Amino acid sequence: MVNQKNKAKSGIPPKSDFNDWYPFIVEASGMIDKRYPIKGMDVWRPFGWKTMKLIDSHTHKEMEDTNHGECNFPLLIPEDLLEKENRLVSLLKRAREQGVNPEDLRNDEEEAGFKKEVYWVKHAGENKLDIPMFLRPTSETAMYTMFPLWIRSHADLPLKIYQIVNTFRYETKQTRSFIRVREIHFFEAHTAHVDEEDATKQINEDLEIVSRLMEKFALPTIISRRPTWDTFPGAWYTIAIDVIMPNGRTLQVASVHHYRDQWAKAFNIRYENIEGGQSYVHQTTYGMSERLLGAIIGVHGDDSGLVLPPDVSPFQIVLIPIISKDNSEIIMNKINDISNKLRSVGLRTHLDERKIRPGQKYYDWELKGIPLRLDFGGRDLKANTIMCTTRLGDKEIISLDNLEDKVIEIIEDFKQKLIINSKIKNEKAIIRLPSLEHSSGKWKLTDEISANKVYWAPFEGNDSDAEIVEKMTSLTFLGESLEELSNEMECCITGKLTKKKVFLAKTY
Amino acid sequence: MVNQKNKAKSGIPPKSDFNDWYPFIVEASGMIDKRYPIKGMDVWRPFGWKTMKLIDSHTHKEMEDTNHGECNFPLLIPEDLLEKENRLVSLLKRAREQGVNPEDLRNDEEEAGFKKEVYWVKHAGENKLDIPMFLRPTSETAMYTMFPLWIRSHADLPLKIYQIVNTFRYETKQTRSFIRVREIHFFEAHTAHVDEEDATKQINEDLEIVSRLMEKFALPTIISRRPTWDTFPGAWYTIAIDVIMPNGRTLQVASVHHYRDQWAKAFNIRYENIEGGQSYVHQTTYGMSERLLGAIIGVHGDDSGLVLPPDVSPFQIVLIPIISKDNSEIIMNKINDISNKLRSVGLRTHLDERKIRPGQKYYDWELKGIPLRLDFGGRDLKANTIMCTTRLGDKEIISLDNLEDKVIEIIEDFKQKLIINSKIKNEKAIIRLPSLEHSSGKWKLTDEISANKVYWAPFEGNDSDAEIVEKMTSLTFLGESLEELSNEMECCITGKLTKKKVFLAKTY
Repeated sequence: MVNQKNKAKSGIPPKSDFNDWYPFIVEASGMIDKRYPIKGMDVWRPFGWKTMKLIDSHTHKEMEDTNHGECNFPLLIPEDLLEKENRLVSLLKRAREQGVNPEDLRNDEEEAGFKKEVYWVKHAGENKLDIPMFLRPTSETAMYTMFPLWIRSHADLPLKIYQIVNTFRYETKQTRSFIRVREIHFFEAHTAHVDEEDATKQINEDLEIVSRLMEKFALPTIISRRPTWDTFPGAWYTIAIDVIMPNGRTLQVASVHHYRDQWAKAFNIRYENIEGGQSYVHQTTYGMSERLLGAIIGVHGDDSGLVLPPDVSPFQIVLIPIISKDNSEIIMNKINDISNKLRSVGLRTHLDERKIRPGQKYYDWELKGIPLRLDFGGRDLKANTIMCTTRLGDKEIISLDNLEDKVIEIIEDFKQKLIINSKIKNEKAIIRLPSLEHSSGKWKLTDEISANKVYWAPFEGNDSDAEIVEKMTSLTFLGESLEELSNEMECCITGKLTKKKVFLAKTY
Repeated sequence: MVNQKNKAKSGIPPKSDFNDWYPFIVEASGMIDKRYPIKGMDVWRPFGWKTMKLIDSHTHKEMEDTNHGECNFPLLIPEDLLEKENRLVSLLKRAREQGVNPEDLRNDEEEAGFKKEVYWVKHAGENKLDIPMFLRPTSETAMYTMFPLWIRSHADLPLKIYQIVNTFRYETKQTRSFIRVREIHFFEAHTAHVDEEDATKQINEDLEIVSRLMEKFALPTIISRRPTWDTFPGAWYTIAIDVIMPNGRTLQVASVHHYRDQWAKAFNIRYENIEGGQSYVHQTTYGMSERLLGAIIGVHGDDSGLVLPPDVSPFQIVLIPIISKDNSEIIMNKINDISNKLRSVGLRTHLDERKIRPGQKYYDWELKGIPLRLDFGGRDLKANTIMCTTRLGDKEIISLDNLEDKVIEIIEDFKQKLIINSKIKNEKAIIRLPSLEHSSGKWKLTDEISANKVYWAPFEGNDSDAEIVEKMTSLTFLGESLEELSNEMECCITGKLTKKKVFLAKTY
């Protein structure tokens, strides 16, 4: 199916050279343009933006089904609001470092948090502003300033809101399209609950949503509870959802935070409880971003370009007329009918009427990763058939009778194949970490660490044990699996028997 | 239909006091919250944001039908890109003021344009940026920097793109929700064409789109070509679409600019024409914003709250169960069925299950302007009927047989009534300007100017004639109607016979 001639002409790097393939393909497929004169701020072209909006549409649907209201908060946040957050974050961070109760540190102030990572607006027109403002990196501060105005009594809870907006981080690391950018297309859900238990239920609901979404995107994930030292200091705990990219690096595509009542205390978010007293709310957040698109591109693409899951592909089907001098009108009429028929059952189609060779069209749509291609020419007209080729290379001549049903079936098969293929790749990518041995005062790995792999290990150690493992393996602790091992195994470093399982990887 | 008791309790100002009613109603209806700590940057609450997104959905549909691709450009624009725009704008402005050819001024530089109205980002983290950036007030500069990279030959034209994004203006005037804000929810379409004629066709297409959208929103408009002195200097001409608000002020809700090749020359946007030579493109833009929502609220609302057109209302139908102790379960089951039935034909419904009195529910949904209310109780259950009340006060008992068809019919009638009502109000609001007389060296109006009115007048004068008219009437020239008078009439100031008709108003 792959057209070697065109491929050579195009100069698509092979996907095995992922670090070359990825930046090439995001531009060549027409998703984005990186030539905008600010590094890390790309222009979304229609093909990329449409794909992102389809990803968002599934998120919107999930939010609606779970009674989250969609808000839109201002982009700018006055610096003085950040003070509350900074105090909270630095307090919790130091309490954690010092192993003391945050309450004991309450009056001690220190700069921390997002201040070093934000863009500042200190001037407007020709004026210097009295209070500097910054572009939101995320909206806790903006939202939790409003929550006390909206939450009065237990009847106002749970409060469940979300927004999909642009956020900003002043990244100093190397930027990569969709993966590490300075203007981020961002989803954030924020909830407030009567107590810790109800907030925990929300965390579970969020994880169910993640799981349904990842099924739509055919993305296998690693779900783990981030280690304490890597948890956002405002959170009680963080559950992260990572995807393994082809180079073995993991990409965090979603995270869910349980805040308990820490933010509520900093922002004074209280409600009148059933007994008539005042209680602090318990809060959660759930975040995702354009990294989802980065993961879809990375996991499914191949040497010929993108491979898009049908639920997010701007069109699911591209129709190519194969015409000769004498049948052009009849072919075009008929293929238009076919397109309309498929649209009438809710499929997204595109009829490629460009006056170029079919081979060039095949190449273009393979590059863009459209799931199905339907070629229709003189022979098909006679036979009442159409030639169907999937982006995974499956070919089939199908009858125009019951076309819609058959196409829906092929698309469903295509989805399942994507899911299975990526699951297999994922399973192969995760292997067990070699044990560590301690002899003559030195730690030694019992086997080598491979590039392109993610590791799991039984682990029952403390922070300094973890530090040794990270140092010896040059890997990062992703966190502890939410699922225990079925049998006790020896901890990779302490040798203690445990059912706890951790994941380690090189991360983006 | 209006519940006087609740009204008194609520303290909704009467709509005749529009300047009190409007700011009250936008918050009381739950559209936005103005208590965010930056003036002119409001929080969109779910009810308001849903309404705005429904407005946008009609715009998206129109853009798709007319082959515009949706992009998303970065928010930040480096200052050095603005220099091109500033030079262009100041050049054209001075050329216009001095009545000379812009080409003769080409090398002369001057600060102008948006610089005084933008928010500046000059710092990120702890660094001062080498090149300051500003938050887009609109995206000509960002987009036209990319156009030369996308346009190579006539085959790339027309290029038609749009985006719906947040834009920013550092307003120094008093802010008003949706009408004059500092973070603006903004729609902008930008096109490039082979020549002036093709660009003019685009202007016509845009005006057709405006007309279809305004029909959906039941908004009568005044369409006029802005006077030269009030045209954005980068434009050859501007056609503006204004809506008359209840206080007689006009609100510009959309504008369409024909740029000819002025921007193309500043940004060097050229293409290879059919003859193989290089030509500059001709460009247009079409802009709208959240002001559409402001206009919908202003035009249709009444003393009880909002009145939303069904095409933009978050729900079109609210269902109220009227239950007693012994029929609660059966009523709830049945009303749920009714809701699902209506949803199955694409209607947006909301079942109000709150445990409060029906009267309180009526009040809430009237305030929010939901087009239809369906009350269902024990009597209806026996009679196989439901009580339908529209937000315009029409009541009808309808049968549950053929419910969907009947409801669709009532909604259609409701739409038509909104259109007719607002058309009548609009026609009444526009009256002829009294003539001006000149005697003993002084100009005098032959009649008084009323508040709350918009004026039309035959006008065939020059800029200084217009200035006299504006001064004598304290009105602003909106511009010249695109439709001529059917018969020649005397110009309101020069007395010359003319078919030209201008509009004058107090503007927002």
